[in-house]
Amino acid sequence: MAINVARYELNGNIGWGVVADGGLTPLVGTYETTGDFIRQGREEARTIAAAGTENNIPLDHVALLSPVTQNQQYVCQGTNYVSHLVESGVDPETQTFNMIFRKASSCIAPPNTDVIRPAHVKLLDYELELGLVFGKKIDGPVQVTWDNLADYVAALVVNNDISARDVQLPQWQFYKGKSYRTFGPTGPWLTLIDQEDVKHFPKLRLQLFVNGKGRQDALADDLFFQPPETLTELSGVQDFAEGDLLATGTPGGVAMQAPKSKLLMFMSKLIPEAKKWGIFIKKNVENPAFLRPGDVIQSRIATEDGALDLGTQTNKIVQG
Amino acid sequence: MAINVARYELNGNIGWGVVADGGLTPLVGTYETTGDFIRQGREEARTIAAAGTENNIPLDHVALLSPVTQNQQYVCQGTNYVSHLVESGVDPETQTFNMIFRKASSCIAPPNTDVIRPAHVKLLDYELELGLVFGKKIDGPVQVTWDNLADYVAALVVNNDISARDVQLPQWQFYKGKSYRTFGPTGPWLTLIDQEDVKHFPKLRLQLFVNGKGRQDALADDLFFQPPETLTELSGVQDFAEGDLLATGTPGGVAMQAPKSKLLMFMSKLIPEAKKWGIFIKKNVENPAFLRPGDVIQSRIATEDGALDLGTQTNKIVQG
Repeated sequence: MAINVARYELNGNIGWGVVADGGLTPLVGTYETTGDFIRQGREEARTIAAAGTENNIPLDHVALLSPVTQNQQYVCQGTNYVSHLVESGVDPETQTFNMIFRKASSCIAPPNTDVIRPAHVKLLDYELELGLVFGKKIDGPVQVTWDNLADYVAALVVNNDISARDVQLPQWQFYKGKSYRTFGPTGPWLTLIDQEDVKHFPKLRLQLFVNGKGRQDALADDLFFQPPETLTELSGVQDFAEGDLLATGTPGGVAMQAPKSKLLMFMSKLIPEAKKWGIFIKKNVENPAFLRPGDVIQSRIATEDGALDLGTQTNKIVQG
Repeated sequence: MAINVARYELNGNIGWGVVADGGLTPLVGTYETTGDFIRQGREEARTIAAAGTENNIPLDHVALLSPVTQNQQYVCQGTNYVSHLVESGVDPETQTFNMIFRKASSCIAPPNTDVIRPAHVKLLDYELELGLVFGKKIDGPVQVTWDNLADYVAALVVNNDISARDVQLPQWQFYKGKSYRTFGPTGPWLTLIDQEDVKHFPKLRLQLFVNGKGRQDALADDLFFQPPETLTELSGVQDFAEGDLLATGTPGGVAMQAPKSKLLMFMSKLIPEAKKWGIFIKKNVENPAFLRPGDVIQSRIATEDGALDLGTQTNKIVQG
């Protein structure tokens, strides 16, 4: 059965605890990194959960930290929902590859962090994503299937791939525009899964609201490249360690929208790159869909039946 | 004065040593990561170098390891020499931003590693780069200048940003095509620098040979975005730790060349992405400039006067 675990700070001490009914039961063990927790603390969490949590600390007495620590890799899939492909102006027929990029791990931030909009950024956007947290070291090619997924994925987590579109897109490579500090709110919970929980995965519903208004709403079932094929391919490319984070891409509904007109999209190819993005930024700077200081994002991921509940993030935008 | 330091394996033990005259003098301290060495071992290396190295281990008795360990960040600048911009089909006038991307740190490999060409990769390419190794933790914006550069950059290192062009380019984001295991040969030396050594930086000459034939030859002076402005900008984006690696981009001379004809370049914009890259790959698969199993790359970076000598890498391509 899935268990929710939090990483938190209380009286200057950082700990891990099992979450239930608005409170948390602290683990005795202390674990500096998410990798350490997964290697050494997972069993203690299961023991506590099985014994029934005492909930001896109300959640509002602690400061929630990201349950993925900044030492871990933060790898991302791009354009991995048809709905987001279409709004980005990409023909889904041409999506024959699993686009992978990185965010700097230093942008991993607590679940309810203020998101800092850097002074020079005009087009700040959100991207709610379902995060997979690795449960096993990978240092060579492996075959990951739905039937062994929980061997490789220890936990699921809410992640917001905050993006400065006016840096990300004109500069071609996504890294910089998606890596500013606070651009990766993560948590609140690590939802530890067993193999029996994997059947609920497709029913996970991702919902994001800005100032209370729904913007994104999709099911994990809609993922273009699902976790088994993604992990299988990536295992042939690079190593992973316990606790590393893979963000699986965002569904449709982000602020940035490509022109609807096919003619306009075609014409935009004829304009020199720098000019094209200049026009794009100018056109969008008054677009109210982009995030502004004072805006509040709420993001949650759960199945409707509550079998898996990764929790809710609340993030306010502040001016950097 | 600059000091060359190696990380090596001898009889199953990993150590660090000061290099001079074809031998190395081991440090007493053991340092698991490059960060640990820079924080704790740098002074011991300087003491050994000042006392005169005994060179009690001939270099050919040890296996050289990458002096940048895989726990460190591996951040890269793209298209950072005019000569490489031009051959990539980019108008240097439009290069108004410092393009930044990541390689997976697990591709960091020993200086003389065999480079494995994955079975599905057809267009394997080299990119000799000058690597900067961070000497100071950065967790907020700083002003880096030529006059304080050595506060932030502890060492220089030879790095080869091996690239699978047929994965990198069609998939838009560079990460996957540049992250396969062994795609980041690094070393042989960490060339530890003092502020007085910084004046030699522009005279560093990068030279790469394939099967003895010169392919790349440029000066660090030709870097489009030089280290002070690059580090200043990046400090406003993300954190760095001691030992992290920034590869500063490659000069002209790589195997991949954009069409010379401006008309062809313009026409290529009108072709759908997938088709364009299909044509590109088909056209280049017989191009002898790309790397094939058995090919040997030699790469070196040094000033002509020997004030700085980062050493030479020799890498054989093998079939994966």
